[in-house]
Amino acid sequence: MSVIVVGSMAFDDIETPFGKSNKIIGGAGTYIAYAAANFVQPVQQVSVVGYDFPAEELEELRRRGVETEAVEIVPDRKSFFWAGKYHLDMNTRDTLVTELNVLGDFKPVIPESYQGADFLMLGNLAPSVQLSVINQLTKRPKLIVLDTMNFWMDIALPELEDVISKIDVLLVNDSEARQLTAEFSLVKAAKKILTMGPKYLIIKKGEHGALLFHENQVFVAPALPLEEVFDPTGAGDTFAGGFIGHLAKTGDISFESMKTAIIVGSALASFCVEKFGTTRLKEISKEDIHQRVQQFRELTNYQAELS
Amino acid sequence: MSVIVVGSMAFDDIETPFGKSNKIIGGAGTYIAYAAANFVQPVQQVSVVGYDFPAEELEELRRRGVETEAVEIVPDRKSFFWAGKYHLDMNTRDTLVTELNVLGDFKPVIPESYQGADFLMLGNLAPSVQLSVINQLTKRPKLIVLDTMNFWMDIALPELEDVISKIDVLLVNDSEARQLTAEFSLVKAAKKILTMGPKYLIIKKGEHGALLFHENQVFVAPALPLEEVFDPTGAGDTFAGGFIGHLAKTGDISFESMKTAIIVGSALASFCVEKFGTTRLKEISKEDIHQRVQQFRELTNYQAELS
Repeated sequence: MSVIVVGSMAFDDIETPFGKSNKIIGGAGTYIAYAAANFVQPVQQVSVVGYDFPAEELEELRRRGVETEAVEIVPDRKSFFWAGKYHLDMNTRDTLVTELNVLGDFKPVIPESYQGADFLMLGNLAPSVQLSVINQLTKRPKLIVLDTMNFWMDIALPELEDVISKIDVLLVNDSEARQLTAEFSLVKAAKKILTMGPKYLIIKKGEHGALLFHENQVFVAPALPLEEVFDPTGAGDTFAGGFIGHLAKTGDISFESMKTAIIVGSALASFCVEKFGTTRLKEISKEDIHQRVQQFRELTNYQAELS
Repeated sequence: MSVIVVGSMAFDDIETPFGKSNKIIGGAGTYIAYAAANFVQPVQQVSVVGYDFPAEELEELRRRGVETEAVEIVPDRKSFFWAGKYHLDMNTRDTLVTELNVLGDFKPVIPESYQGADFLMLGNLAPSVQLSVINQLTKRPKLIVLDTMNFWMDIALPELEDVISKIDVLLVNDSEARQLTAEFSLVKAAKKILTMGPKYLIIKKGEHGALLFHENQVFVAPALPLEEVFDPTGAGDTFAGGFIGHLAKTGDISFESMKTAIIVGSALASFCVEKFGTTRLKEISKEDIHQRVQQFRELTNYQAELS
């Protein structure tokens, strides 16, 4: 099955307590594509870059089964650029530079060759951009997954609520779930969000794992306890890519299948944070992924029943 | 098998965003005893109370299989009293009043009838008090579990390190694990603690569950996502009581058995927070516990393997 992935492709400059990355490839769409391409081809990428985005990066993505027909290259402008610095706890960061550049007036155009895709992954972007993609699809995908962030809740809440009403799975972190619903209890927040459109809600809690809500069911996914988180950038996007990649591979969008997809996403994210940027995602093999997923299974597995 | 439980028995006055408890029964030892007595008898209680502690509470504990021979009643002084107020997030609280009273010079005496116990649960108390109990036992228990808190790390670190060197399982929360080791990464903190004496380390993360470390193994236990946490007081003590209760019941102190014991402890704690104080712990039946443990199993259970 094919997956359409919509998201930024960009440059990042990241500083963590462990070092500085200098200018490297980043962007939600990039992370999602590298993660999803482990499970499904083609990944039909929708993005925009400037003249400065390396042709070799696009070539590397194509080599992995990512179609780049809808990656617009703007010849006279620069790619989106973000610079940030993580605090010691790695859960909070300061944005040092945001240069929107080509992303400022991104108007994605879905080509004919992408029509008919069963899966749509809308990476974190302006809700109006996410909505325009949904509106351009002649057949509604079997599953639409949307990632967003607090920024859009602050400046574009009506548009965000509009796009949220049209999707199947929402991905947010715990503080975003609270902000979106004005509920402190995540269970109450989840109940509210499940009345806003999505049938499934995933709340990402970083080092504390993730929660999946659906009707009255809940699944708790662990995070792998890591000795070091070297660079958390892109971990959420990588999670999303692994999640939709697994679902698209199996074609099964049941609650049960989503549980496994969350473990797969978490496993991919646990690789992502081991090195700067997409470095680790480019290195790992199917066997590495398989072993990591098995490691996740052992984390929460226990046999004994109460007597 | 019998379990010796050492811990405070006291009065609490608790304020949460949901209301005020007024003066109610509390104390680490009380919560531990109510939780553990669901699984094992006798629970051999070691504590100290004043003239004001209700005889009916001791009678209720005895009815549940808790021996109170070593619960000293000081006729002319008051019981330990703590008043506190929880913040909206329920993870932080302000102490409003601490009156040590009888707890200030608590010198536990282990009676002959308690000697030979296979399990020892040392609730949160001054490390010197915890140590004096270990030193009074003529036969070293099969398993010694110790709970402590940041307060003792601040004011009695050498004594705390001494008692930690003599135990098998340490219970702390995430910030305490970091404080004790000066390591931010919990995995690094755990590795250090496992060189300090304990063979097992449990890191409690409240609403994010708990981690069990042993050698190079790790187990991640979920917390039950709750709509409301009504009163978190005693949740950690209740967890400890359920944990040691299950181990003492089965007599099995393997890593595999501890996984189940952590789930049992988590299940008991999830009841504890539903009402003020020990109210809920006194209401629940074996069937309630069984169902809650089953609910925990479903939280992290997933079937599908990667194809």
